[in-house]
Amino acid sequence: MIRHFSVAAGADRRSQVGIGVVGYGYWGPNLVRNFAEQPDARMVAVCDARTERLNSVAIRHPSVGVTDDFQDLLNAPDIDAIAVATPSKSHYSLARQALLAGKHVLVEKPMTQTSEQAEELVELADRRGLVLMVDHTFAYTGSVQKIRELVNNNELGRLYYWDSVRVNLGLFQQDVSVLDDLAVHDLSIMDHVLGMLPEAVAATGVAHVPGRPVNTAYLTCYFATDMLAHFHVNWLSPVKVRRTLIGGDRRMVVYDDNEPSEKVKVYDSGITVGEDEDRRIELKIGYRAGDVWAPKLPLDEALNVETAHFVECIRESKVPRTDGRAGWRVVRILETAARSLAEHGRPIEISWSPAVTKSDVATPGSAA
Amino acid sequence: MIRHFSVAAGADRRSQVGIGVVGYGYWGPNLVRNFAEQPDARMVAVCDARTERLNSVAIRHPSVGVTDDFQDLLNAPDIDAIAVATPSKSHYSLARQALLAGKHVLVEKPMTQTSEQAEELVELADRRGLVLMVDHTFAYTGSVQKIRELVNNNELGRLYYWDSVRVNLGLFQQDVSVLDDLAVHDLSIMDHVLGMLPEAVAATGVAHVPGRPVNTAYLTCYFATDMLAHFHVNWLSPVKVRRTLIGGDRRMVVYDDNEPSEKVKVYDSGITVGEDEDRRIELKIGYRAGDVWAPKLPLDEALNVETAHFVECIRESKVPRTDGRAGWRVVRILETAARSLAEHGRPIEISWSPAVTKSDVATPGSAA
Amino acid sequence: MIRHFSVAAGADRRSQVGIGVVGYGYWGPNLVRNFAEQPDARMVAVCDARTERLNSVAIRHPSVGVTDDFQDLLNAPDIDAIAVATPSKSHYSLARQALLAGKHVLVEKPMTQTSEQAEELVELADRRGLVLMVDHTFAYTGSVQKIRELVNNNELGRLYYWDSVRVNLGLFQQDVSVLDDLAVHDLSIMDHVLGMLPEAVAATGVAHVPGRPVNTAYLTCYFATDMLAHFHVNWLSPVKVRRTLIGGDRRMVVYDDNEPSEKVKVYDSGITVGEDEDRRIELKIGYRAGDVWAPKLPLDEALNVETAHFVECIRESKVPRTDGRAGWRVVRILETAARSLAEHGRPIEISWSPAVTKSDVATPGSAA
Amino acid sequence: MIRHFSVAAGADRRSQVGIGVVGYGYWGPNLVRNFAEQPDARMVAVCDARTERLNSVAIRHPSVGVTDDFQDLLNAPDIDAIAVATPSKSHYSLARQALLAGKHVLVEKPMTQTSEQAEELVELADRRGLVLMVDHTFAYTGSVQKIRELVNNNELGRLYYWDSVRVNLGLFQQDVSVLDDLAVHDLSIMDHVLGMLPEAVAATGVAHVPGRPVNTAYLTCYFATDMLAHFHVNWLSPVKVRRTLIGGDRRMVVYDDNEPSEKVKVYDSGITVGEDEDRRIELKIGYRAGDVWAPKLPLDEALNVETAHFVECIRESKVPRTDGRAGWRVVRILETAARSLAEHGRPIEISWSPAVTKSDVATPGSAA
Repeated sequence: MIRHFSVAAGADRRSQVGIGVVGYGYWGPNLVRNFAEQPDARMVAVCDARTERLNSVAIRHPSVGVTDDFQDLLNAPDIDAIAVATPSKSHYSLARQALLAGKHVLVEKPMTQTSEQAEELVELADRRGLVLMVDHTFAYTGSVQKIRELVNNNELGRLYYWDSVRVNLGLFQQDVSVLDDLAVHDLSIMDHVLGMLPEAVAATGVAHVPGRPVNTAYLTCYFATDMLAHFHVNWLSPVKVRRTLIGGDRRMVVYDDNEPSEKVKVYDSGITVGEDEDRRIELKIGYRAGDVWAPKLPLDEALNVETAHFVECIRESKVPRTDGRAGWRVVRILETAARSLAEHGRPIEISWSPAVTKSDVATPGSAA
Repeated sequence: MIRHFSVAAGADRRSQVGIGVVGYGYWGPNLVRNFAEQPDARMVAVCDARTERLNSVAIRHPSVGVTDDFQDLLNAPDIDAIAVATPSKSHYSLARQALLAGKHVLVEKPMTQTSEQAEELVELADRRGLVLMVDHTFAYTGSVQKIRELVNNNELGRLYYWDSVRVNLGLFQQDVSVLDDLAVHDLSIMDHVLGMLPEAVAATGVAHVPGRPVNTAYLTCYFATDMLAHFHVNWLSPVKVRRTLIGGDRRMVVYDDNEPSEKVKVYDSGITVGEDEDRRIELKIGYRAGDVWAPKLPLDEALNVETAHFVECIRESKVPRTDGRAGWRVVRILETAARSLAEHGRPIEISWSPAVTKSDVATPGSAA
Repeated sequence: MIRHFSVAAGADRRSQVGIGVVGYGYWGPNLVRNFAEQPDARMVAVCDARTERLNSVAIRHPSVGVTDDFQDLLNAPDIDAIAVATPSKSHYSLARQALLAGKHVLVEKPMTQTSEQAEELVELADRRGLVLMVDHTFAYTGSVQKIRELVNNNELGRLYYWDSVRVNLGLFQQDVSVLDDLAVHDLSIMDHVLGMLPEAVAATGVAHVPGRPVNTAYLTCYFATDMLAHFHVNWLSPVKVRRTLIGGDRRMVVYDDNEPSEKVKVYDSGITVGEDEDRRIELKIGYRAGDVWAPKLPLDEALNVETAHFVECIRESKVPRTDGRAGWRVVRILETAARSLAEHGRPIEISWSPAVTKSDVATPGSAA
Repeated sequence: MIRHFSVAAGADRRSQVGIGVVGYGYWGPNLVRNFAEQPDARMVAVCDARTERLNSVAIRHPSVGVTDDFQDLLNAPDIDAIAVATPSKSHYSLARQALLAGKHVLVEKPMTQTSEQAEELVELADRRGLVLMVDHTFAYTGSVQKIRELVNNNELGRLYYWDSVRVNLGLFQQDVSVLDDLAVHDLSIMDHVLGMLPEAVAATGVAHVPGRPVNTAYLTCYFATDMLAHFHVNWLSPVKVRRTLIGGDRRMVVYDDNEPSEKVKVYDSGITVGEDEDRRIELKIGYRAGDVWAPKLPLDEALNVETAHFVECIRESKVPRTDGRAGWRVVRILETAARSLAEHGRPIEISWSPAVTKSDVATPGSAA
């Protein structure tokens, strides 16, 4: 006989974390799908103002409730945590309401539009003892975890530079610049891997379409050391590039997220100081100085790892890997970059309050 | 208020094609997911002998029924069509039972283990007026459709060769050889693109692990023309290669399914016959003779296109693009290849009955 | 009987342009080899201070004279032109002496160390009616010629950005920064292709090794239009990258000099302005918007084309494609970049005297 | 004062090996250039029937003598060794005359047209105590040396397969098939790396152009073990592919000669035998099973290493790495392949006389 399981049969619903998701556009469906597959979570309801998006939820996830009123999520007693996947201008307001309603919160990146908003959310979550996590998805990939491990174990040695290129064809949006849309990924990766805070930021860019935000931008971060970090983001590139070079005096890393199987490659550094003409000619002709190694990486979907981590942090009162402070730090850099961009690329210093680094940020050379 | 839609609300269930799927291993979940998203179909039930696989259905698709008894699918009056996604040794038996029970059938590739079985299924479906379709998924990709269009429009000119490489690391299975597992894809692509039947087949290969089937094989197809088709399939390759070269006297195609954005490239042929030494040196040094063009391809998921096509063929009594005869032709080549392999690569002729080509197979040069 | 040709038998030595080369380090041998193969030139003598380098000349080119005294080249009546392939700090002095001695001059890039020196050389050559050419080798490649043609024919439309990456492992030199060593190539390519002069320049970089020049740098050029040009050069990259993206509102170009056969690819632009969510998702998933086209390029060695062009300009009193003014323009940008770099990346304006653009610089949209 | 060195000044001409080269088409110039740079050799004279080719010698190498009469090379007392770089049909006759005249010989590949000819040359050289070497250039590359070392040190373990693809656009020649032109490279590489002799050979191919030799071919070698070797060669490929996969039960190698910097990659094998469904799915989704390692390779030009080795073998009476027996073995395989091709791919056994393996061929697992 064809049986129909009662919904979520076999799991103790009381011990599961109830999840509400607000925003069912591009990313929301991924959140819903991944939360629906977490054994310790229950996907309770989705909120979106658009009826056709709610219909789409019903077709794919018939057992998940839907509503067009965010208040319903706040009021639902079986919702313990809310994931905010709306356009970034509403992140602050929705996350704040959720925290005030006693819900744990996962927010899309960039976490807020201003660092003041980010700071307020962090303080609110601290005061209420709630988990506040930002969806810096790349921090949960095997690639970024491997690079973090290499840096923390001092495999790269003293760091010389971080160079990221993230360019592709993208839609010009009304109120989100290419920095908020693309550089946010690289800044969150660098924050997670290095745990170093820039002392100054400079940015330059162009908004080629009148009335639209900047679509091509270059961002530079200056640190207390002589490490230089640079980011190229662009919505007008005919090709998709996702490549980060990280140079150290012992080893160097190429992280190419477009590569199907060898996303992270580690190169013996091969730096030479000297006037040796033969060596110079050899380097001109040759391509590299030592062996190359591509470590095997786990294949788990990052968002699966991340949603499981969010649920675990709620159940075990842990600080997330990408907590509200990580979101705050990245927002701080983005808003400073926007100011520099408005001032024709003038480098602008950032002073960091101790509160923003309270979370356990790894320092290169220390244990992971 | 958080609402719960009644299952499939808003669609007239009577007009939808009811679907049952048997086999929920590697491919079954993809079929279920795609049928669940077809507006004109309803995913009624899944059958699998393994309880944990049925639990997996319940978690992802709570409204879909489950059973471990195939007879339940055959008996269900709201199931109009059955997709068979079990190991290939049971395809024939399950598809035959389904047809006898008056269900339309979609079968995984290879359709059956022998061409006699394939022929019987084709005749049975013909007699009963049921749709019999084989899941030659690649035929529904934008890449293969574009190549078929190029061949049919005579853009490539007279065809010289077809060379496919499909190699990767794969698990040694008990009863499926690498020809059945991998070459079946390339044979089904060639069948769909060329609509030419080989007059003889030769194959050679090795089963390096005792008691396991052939894991490395080379297959050659000979045609009435001087076109040569050759296939390399291998489960022991450290790298994944998915590349087909198609050479014609006017243009040539490189179809690289690993390429993220330029899967199909069209090259001006540049063939030169002569003794010109300078030209020979130029070709030695240079790489190509003319312009290269990479047409834009649609990005639709092939299985979505295919499941929609299956539903449409049922509703409108059409012959599927990859009908049972296509499955039969491919099985015929595979079984001949297995014989050649057992006879140390001796080329073996195939005589094709008119029945196998009854479906509307395109011929190069004719309209698509 | 084994014959020995008398040197350069069969050519009328009097009608050939006699060539002297000073500096036989990395690049000098390429110049000598290419001049030796020009039918209208005669490779007369090489000057270098190092005896072992002169021995090397004798082994490869027994008929070419050698000397360690530059004065010998200046005094030789059968030397009509001198190519300067020494370290850049001596370019100005050697080129000036050569011009004063009535010799035509080809100088390595960067042409001089200051723009005042460049200006002086240009004026001196003008006054004496001598050819002054700078060895901007890339301007003579098929790739750059094709891109120039595309820009001049307005195939790309209005230009949005120019983004170059030229990074590899390189030796830290004593007195040449990575801008002088690598960015000089990209600036000379942009000068040749666009013929647009930047109104301001900004640069940032790091000299990680004490006492050594900057090894990692980013350079930005601002124009009267909203086109942005950006250059990344780096001697500490584990991988060699040679990639330029040029974005226009009609088409875009990817110029990848590492590609063996498809160095220049032209993409339909596919720029979309709007809020269309489906389109946004498509662009997130897809990679590109239109067809791609890789034109066939000539395979001639650039330095062969260039040395022939130099000889032709001398014989026919023509202005070289990369004349002294092109060298002057590039030096001007480099020295401004060095100033900006010293001032922490402050953008610095450049005012261009009419004299520097006297040569026939193409303007986008005008005929080639 | 500009000095002119007397030719080859500073070297004791009597202790140098005098070299004559016959044939100055595509490859001859490379031989002449490399011999000219060997300190222990002296490039004495070049023979070619075409006057314009001799003129070309005179321009590039004015001190090298020229003749259109091969007898001149045989008679010249200062010529100790002759390199034969003519079309393959004249290899046997010219090499034989040279050996009979007491000259050491380096012959282009394929060494001769028949194995009887090869055997005769080997015996003649043995009897006269002369060095007979075949120009299997790839054996002198850093890539092939590294792969040989990996095999000899048993790093790959038991060998499963050797799969080579060498395809590109090439000119149809009058009397050389694509097997002689391209497969000869791969056979010589395999001979050098494995030192295993095939017990049978099968080949299939097509000559699409009437009156021209086979342009597309597949060659299979069967061994006493269950290792399978397969070669795809093609003059009608729109893309240039130079890729060899070598599979062992411990590690696998990808040798891609088109790669600028990572020509040899070593993969942990990751072979799994079993029915584990999760593992199967992982392999379907994933790409590889372990770490990848790309060893640093020397950058020396192979022909420089090879010409030095030839000179050294003459001066020190050594057996060359690629001696006449290596040439003989490869010719034997090629002529057997041609027979198989004429018999529609029938596998043909080869019995090897002990004489052909007298040279020190490495056996996998034994010391290098």
